[in-house]
Amino acid sequence: MASPSPGYSITLRAATEVGRTSTSDLVAAAAATGAAITALDVVESTPHSVIIDVSADTRDLDHADEVAAALGELPGVEVHKVSDRTFLLHLGGKLESAPKVPLRNRDDLSRAYTPGVARVCKAIAGNKDDARRLTIKRNTVAVVTDGTAVLGLGDIGPEAAMPVMEGKAVLFKQFAGVDAWPVALDTKDTEEIISICRALAPAYGGINLEDISAPRCFEIEAKLREELDIPVFHDDQHGTGIVTLAALKNALKVVGKNLEDLRIVVSGVGAAGNAIIRLLQVAGAKNIIACGRDGAIGPNSTVDTEHKVWLQRNTNPEGFDGTLKEAVVGSDVFIGVSAPNVLDGSDIQAMNEDALVFAMANPDPEVDPAEALKHAAVVATGRSDYPNQINNVLAFPGIFRGLLDAEATDIDENIMVAAADAIASCIPAEELHPGYVVPSVFDPEVAKKVAEAVAAVSS
Amino acid sequence: MASPSPGYSITLRAATEVGRTSTSDLVAAAAATGAAITALDVVESTPHSVIIDVSADTRDLDHADEVAAALGELPGVEVHKVSDRTFLLHLGGKLESAPKVPLRNRDDLSRAYTPGVARVCKAIAGNKDDARRLTIKRNTVAVVTDGTAVLGLGDIGPEAAMPVMEGKAVLFKQFAGVDAWPVALDTKDTEEIISICRALAPAYGGINLEDISAPRCFEIEAKLREELDIPVFHDDQHGTGIVTLAALKNALKVVGKNLEDLRIVVSGVGAAGNAIIRLLQVAGAKNIIACGRDGAIGPNSTVDTEHKVWLQRNTNPEGFDGTLKEAVVGSDVFIGVSAPNVLDGSDIQAMNEDALVFAMANPDPEVDPAEALKHAAVVATGRSDYPNQINNVLAFPGIFRGLLDAEATDIDENIMVAAADAIASCIPAEELHPGYVVPSVFDPEVAKKVAEAVAAVSS
Repeated sequence: MASPSPGYSITLRAATEVGRTSTSDLVAAAAATGAAITALDVVESTPHSVIIDVSADTRDLDHADEVAAALGELPGVEVHKVSDRTFLLHLGGKLESAPKVPLRNRDDLSRAYTPGVARVCKAIAGNKDDARRLTIKRNTVAVVTDGTAVLGLGDIGPEAAMPVMEGKAVLFKQFAGVDAWPVALDTKDTEEIISICRALAPAYGGINLEDISAPRCFEIEAKLREELDIPVFHDDQHGTGIVTLAALKNALKVVGKNLEDLRIVVSGVGAAGNAIIRLLQVAGAKNIIACGRDGAIGPNSTVDTEHKVWLQRNTNPEGFDGTLKEAVVGSDVFIGVSAPNVLDGSDIQAMNEDALVFAMANPDPEVDPAEALKHAAVVATGRSDYPNQINNVLAFPGIFRGLLDAEATDIDENIMVAAADAIASCIPAEELHPGYVVPSVFDPEVAKKVAEAVAAVSS
Repeated sequence: MASPSPGYSITLRAATEVGRTSTSDLVAAAAATGAAITALDVVESTPHSVIIDVSADTRDLDHADEVAAALGELPGVEVHKVSDRTFLLHLGGKLESAPKVPLRNRDDLSRAYTPGVARVCKAIAGNKDDARRLTIKRNTVAVVTDGTAVLGLGDIGPEAAMPVMEGKAVLFKQFAGVDAWPVALDTKDTEEIISICRALAPAYGGINLEDISAPRCFEIEAKLREELDIPVFHDDQHGTGIVTLAALKNALKVVGKNLEDLRIVVSGVGAAGNAIIRLLQVAGAKNIIACGRDGAIGPNSTVDTEHKVWLQRNTNPEGFDGTLKEAVVGSDVFIGVSAPNVLDGSDIQAMNEDALVFAMANPDPEVDPAEALKHAAVVATGRSDYPNQINNVLAFPGIFRGLLDAEATDIDENIMVAAADAIASCIPAEELHPGYVVPSVFDPEVAKKVAEAVAAVSS
């Protein structure tokens, strides 16, 4: 069963009759349902009644209802209002624009706006490169989506994708001082998305593509990289690839193996799977087997997209033919970016000694992490409630910080490998152990080191 | 000759030999060129020399060079560095994105980003109207340009237009708390601009079109108004129209005339001229003569655009035929949004008694304001160094504040008239006089009153 999460944090306002139900009764009743009480705030206290706000983390919406019902059943208790802290936090959105210059008086206005601004415009008209010096292009990234592949929710449209894009922009700023702005597009037309990004580019120093479904995301990214003079980065692909590579490098130090020697099975051949495979190869991996829904992609597979053709030509040197479960037998590494529970403990047991298992399907991994840990040396997931969370937040803020600082016009796989090395290096060798191969997302050194590494290889 | 302006403010670093040149010599030399000294800052002082930063407002770039040369010619003075405060202020741009929610720890992350954010996304996917409640759409306006008609500079492109768009966004925030973001498009294709705005709309609560050349701006605005469920406002048209109407209403109180009875000549039939004429008619004006480069548009004029056809059908009820100079004879109001010095004092003298002259060409008005004032009752310009500045800043922040607050889906001319009335009302009747018919752009009441008036008629 899932644990209570702050993502499902609620606040209940309960009126209690003095003498019939005490505060500790409230806490006990909520705790009995499995909720984690996080705060008690007395709102009003009279000789006869006490009104109290009970904040608690719950497992999900049903559990939140259950907690409210449990309190309401106590003698003399009325539950007045249940508020959902996640929704409260989202009211009015999570991002704003902010002036960097004062506009207190006429002199300020004359410099920041008319008439002074005209000279700055003329300077840029005379030399477009000055845009990076004299406009927000210097520090600004567009977070572009069409809302077709948002989290695990699929095609929910641009409006519904906005909370994720806003959150992403907040992370960009918080972790790396990058000014990101959400661009949620009401079109799924590949060509139109490309031409819109092209038209938007003058105001931005980089484009972060986000939650665009495969295979359209590949074409959009490839075309934009070719055409634009600012870096274009598809986070679902490369962010995941970079953090996976970082975790793998550290895990290999723990078990004392080399990337070149490993048999690696990747489950999932969408955006993330493809990017992981390409990046692992650039980093030195020789023997990767890619598995889709029909099992391993090999010489005899039917391949219907450009990317599967590429996989057929560039992976599976053994010519292995079989299911995912068959593929993992005798492998060193399992990397899952696919679907829940496609493997069980016995599959992990059938892997080589000191197996590494990265089961990143969210919220339910490809294999139960507790089961996997019985047989594997290192287990990583996409979840925050297990050790070794593979979280893109470790990569994208620092990467764009570095690209902007270097005034980079492009990003390539060497830059991504450098970013992965920087992330891996945030855990000193002596601190590495099976439960700590990925640094904390709140480690302030990560974005700094990534930015420095990226800027160094970009410029 | 132009006066020194903070838009051309410079700082000179001068090293002086003690005993040969004093600080007051520096000030005198700079002042002799006509510069206005704004600050003296001693940077370093030794027994032999003093290094001093001299800040001064100058008239233009040539004048700035002249000041530096004048100081350099003083005995024992070396001018080391001339910095331009307008450019300094623009380094790195004038706008940033800022998180509205904290992300200090895992709990914050769980609510603002994954996994909590997924529930907010789902809620919006289930009910798109929730986007106004749970995303930045509630308070966000896109400032859209293609850089084709920027200030008086013409088609300078999207990169060079950015400083104006950023300045606009700063004004939106500063004066009305609206989160505006610049969208400078690298395309001049009317259809493409329309489709891009359509695609961007989900993330915005309104669109402010800016500095897009006529007649393309008319088509873009009309199509977007028809198609989108958020208000679309072309500031160069309607912002100017609204502030002009506000100023005219107050000027009429000063001279005791009625809008219905006036003979009004408008010079300029571009974006601003068209919008002014339409708005004046909605407000009650009956007799407007529109003049283009070939004189008055009348029954016999050749009209080559849709908008000129409209003007031919809906203005000039007298059927007047003649030049601009002929048209102003016997008129009550002259409104210029055209070109410098198309009229002189004698033309104003030929107008009716208590003539009102709004000469808004920038930086050089249609008629010298000092000459005009000899014959007219009220003179207004687009410049900040004369009384009665017609400045769009009085309109757009409050208008969008009101539209966003009312969750308006559209804007029409009744809303614009209400905004004009609100601006006019910011000067109490007893304070109105010929030199004060337009409130100060720094009057904090203006945006508030405009917002209230707009929200009242929108909802």
